[in-house]
Amino acid sequence: MSSTQELNLRVLGIRDPGRLQGLAARITEQISQGEQKPFQKVIDVSSGDPHRAGMPPLSFARQVLAACLYPELLKENRFPSDVRQRAQKLLGACNGGSVGSYSASSCGIPHIQKSVAEFITRRDSGVASDPENIIFSSGSQRTLMLFLHLLSSGQGLTQTAVLTPLPCPHSLPMLLDEVGVKQVPYQLLEEHGWATDLEELHRALKAARGHCEPRAIYISNPGNPTGHVQDLKTIQEVIRFATSERLILLVEEVYQDSVVGQEKKFLSYKKVLFEMGASYSETVEMVSFHSISAGTVGECGLRGGYMEVINMDPLVKNFLVSMQAPCSPPVLPQLALEIMVNPPSPGDASYELYTQEILQRVETLSQNAQRACEFLNDIPGMSCQHAMGGVFLYPRLDLPVQIIQEAEMSGLQADVLYCQKLLEEEGVCLGPGSENGHDDKNYHIRLCVLAPPAVLEDVLKRLRLFHLRIQDRHH
Amino acid sequence: MSSTQELNLRVLGIRDPGRLQGLAARITEQISQGEQKPFQKVIDVSSGDPHRAGMPPLSFARQVLAACLYPELLKENRFPSDVRQRAQKLLGACNGGSVGSYSASSCGIPHIQKSVAEFITRRDSGVASDPENIIFSSGSQRTLMLFLHLLSSGQGLTQTAVLTPLPCPHSLPMLLDEVGVKQVPYQLLEEHGWATDLEELHRALKAARGHCEPRAIYISNPGNPTGHVQDLKTIQEVIRFATSERLILLVEEVYQDSVVGQEKKFLSYKKVLFEMGASYSETVEMVSFHSISAGTVGECGLRGGYMEVINMDPLVKNFLVSMQAPCSPPVLPQLALEIMVNPPSPGDASYELYTQEILQRVETLSQNAQRACEFLNDIPGMSCQHAMGGVFLYPRLDLPVQIIQEAEMSGLQADVLYCQKLLEEEGVCLGPGSENGHDDKNYHIRLCVLAPPAVLEDVLKRLRLFHLRIQDRHH
Repeated sequence: MSSTQELNLRVLGIRDPGRLQGLAARITEQISQGEQKPFQKVIDVSSGDPHRAGMPPLSFARQVLAACLYPELLKENRFPSDVRQRAQKLLGACNGGSVGSYSASSCGIPHIQKSVAEFITRRDSGVASDPENIIFSSGSQRTLMLFLHLLSSGQGLTQTAVLTPLPCPHSLPMLLDEVGVKQVPYQLLEEHGWATDLEELHRALKAARGHCEPRAIYISNPGNPTGHVQDLKTIQEVIRFATSERLILLVEEVYQDSVVGQEKKFLSYKKVLFEMGASYSETVEMVSFHSISAGTVGECGLRGGYMEVINMDPLVKNFLVSMQAPCSPPVLPQLALEIMVNPPSPGDASYELYTQEILQRVETLSQNAQRACEFLNDIPGMSCQHAMGGVFLYPRLDLPVQIIQEAEMSGLQADVLYCQKLLEEEGVCLGPGSENGHDDKNYHIRLCVLAPPAVLEDVLKRLRLFHLRIQDRHH
Repeated sequence: MSSTQELNLRVLGIRDPGRLQGLAARITEQISQGEQKPFQKVIDVSSGDPHRAGMPPLSFARQVLAACLYPELLKENRFPSDVRQRAQKLLGACNGGSVGSYSASSCGIPHIQKSVAEFITRRDSGVASDPENIIFSSGSQRTLMLFLHLLSSGQGLTQTAVLTPLPCPHSLPMLLDEVGVKQVPYQLLEEHGWATDLEELHRALKAARGHCEPRAIYISNPGNPTGHVQDLKTIQEVIRFATSERLILLVEEVYQDSVVGQEKKFLSYKKVLFEMGASYSETVEMVSFHSISAGTVGECGLRGGYMEVINMDPLVKNFLVSMQAPCSPPVLPQLALEIMVNPPSPGDASYELYTQEILQRVETLSQNAQRACEFLNDIPGMSCQHAMGGVFLYPRLDLPVQIIQEAEMSGLQADVLYCQKLLEEEGVCLGPGSENGHDDKNYHIRLCVLAPPAVLEDVLKRLRLFHLRIQDRHH
């Protein structure tokens, strides 16, 4: 008997996203069993997971969460007064006063929807946000998936498609595949620091129409993995483009707190949209995604995020909520989200420590990004654009032709083979650029620079050693 | 512009699962704003959410989780030694030693897969469990959904269908709808304590074949919401039925630790399957679901569960894992799961308190179930089967014809109207039986009895007052 052999065809298309992580785990296991390697441990900076790389969590957030989990701690003076007050307030917003109860609503906890809306309103200098437009989910990828489920329909010429940047966040291609949505890539301009080009948007859309049904455009700003931060003019252009082409704007803004470039600042699509007047602000359908995994908070393991939906038909909101309904959203990540959007204020007992910890992260990120970029540009056969935001660098590689041929023979992408060898020989796990969308002209690698400076230094040195070695090997 | 108006047709079929919860939230809000009601607060026992009803969490679990979130607590003697050791061990199994990092694998943390497999092997008196067959997800509903996505295909005569008990868990109909799988109900025998009847399985399957493609049978044991616990003979019959009819067994066993009937004990389908010999144990495809939300642990808000997949094609496992891949499973609920399957042992510092807390829950559950059943059977126009396990009672109602007519006129099910009036007049939120599958002959209500005895007593008294009042009103 084998009913499950009659599987959806999708099974045959499974990618192997965990290939390098699986190898990294095996090597770590081998080391723990005493096997000799040319390195003492594996360092994985392939994804934006700062805690894995050794960045400490924010004390205020963890103290409040610990107190919510074990409220006995609130009876003692173990934690600062604002931690105790916040924990009490958050527990008061939970059903039964416990993080162990289901969320009141499938959207999330109403008190936290309100906190998020207030945060957005402050961030956007007063452009109002409605708590009812905030939908919580377990991570921005999950919220995006929910939304794409809604759009997904058709096959072949009628298949739903989304315009996506090339390069794009490395989880995006798999996610689109998963929900049956076709990718229509628009190339970002590497030589202009990975800026978005209006001509290219038109070209990509025109080329796609007739072959599929493009219904949305996805934007990552600050850019993952590019580090580009869009300026006002670009955002206005993209909004006008989406409006005239009747595309929904799907805006991933998870690195909004991680802008490091001089004289650069984060502008939300929503703020720009609302400052373009009623003909835009009352009609353009937009979803903005944010997450507790990203940036200075970096709580990837908790899995929490929200989307703000703008100008959506109430039916759509109902649908998004009803899709979550059988699996009510987890409570703790919602509390973490509340803490992220509503940090200690001046005068609060934790304010000083919190500010110091945030400052230290932002400085580390900024100095690391600068340092790593210069370091990579000094390696022959590597070139890297300066990052203005986000946590990644995305250097381009010149690969020896032998590596490319070897990869072809093993049925691998050359950048994957490069990363695999780097991992085996130096114990450093980076992300191959082919995960960030198919680029048939160039090879890239992806590395997260939000790591303790000593860890990053180690990564860079091992990478240089390896890169020089394979270039020597093939000369 | 309104691209989202061209929605999947599914939107039109949205249920309104949160209707009563929404009403409960509004009433609570009104009370908090000083509005006068005939009651001081709403009590919601419509779902199995013991913390919401006021049951305290298990100290050991919460202490370990709090320490994992804020490891500074490990440097003090605040917690018992086994709490500190467990927290240290669990953190050691997390990437970067932090609950803030992504899980190593999309299945979950390998150390925890191993703990779960060991628990299953102990539970099943040595029938081995392979850690690689354990797939973690955010709750048993989410794991079931993942699996159903895999089975779902076809439309009309070829639409995938699943045999489901009537009554079934109240989240199931929505979940099947969501993934496009048709329900084929098999009626449980109310007069025999909601036992499963082999004849009825054959009848249901026969009636369905030709109209859809039944590919699996769903079992809830101990039964949600029935409280029935299946005996060896029934389990063997169901396994033989599934085998001969080539149906996959989807076995929800989340209340395995909550068997309260005298002389009753929980038998897992896996154990029975493996004791039926190789012709069954090596061929029958089965998935067993378990969760941290259920039973004595009752951590609904954390959202965690696992499935054990048996005799599945490796492709199927890959598929289940790849479907989760873009959204790696949250870490804390995995730790809570580890604590659930691996509680303190005799000699550990927390053993005594833990045992005392568990015992108290089991006794509360047992006494509540007994007391509530007798109470309900004493109310005219109500009859209730004794529960042997799980956390629900599912009494049958005789409703006055006027209520049925009033419901018809408002386009509601009569049991929904009954629950709505109960909520408005007495502040008690119960679950209408129509959520547990469509039954055109009888009306039922669902109530969770894992609540502090005083809370349950209050619920029962308010329910009796209301029930007698509406019967009087219509005489």
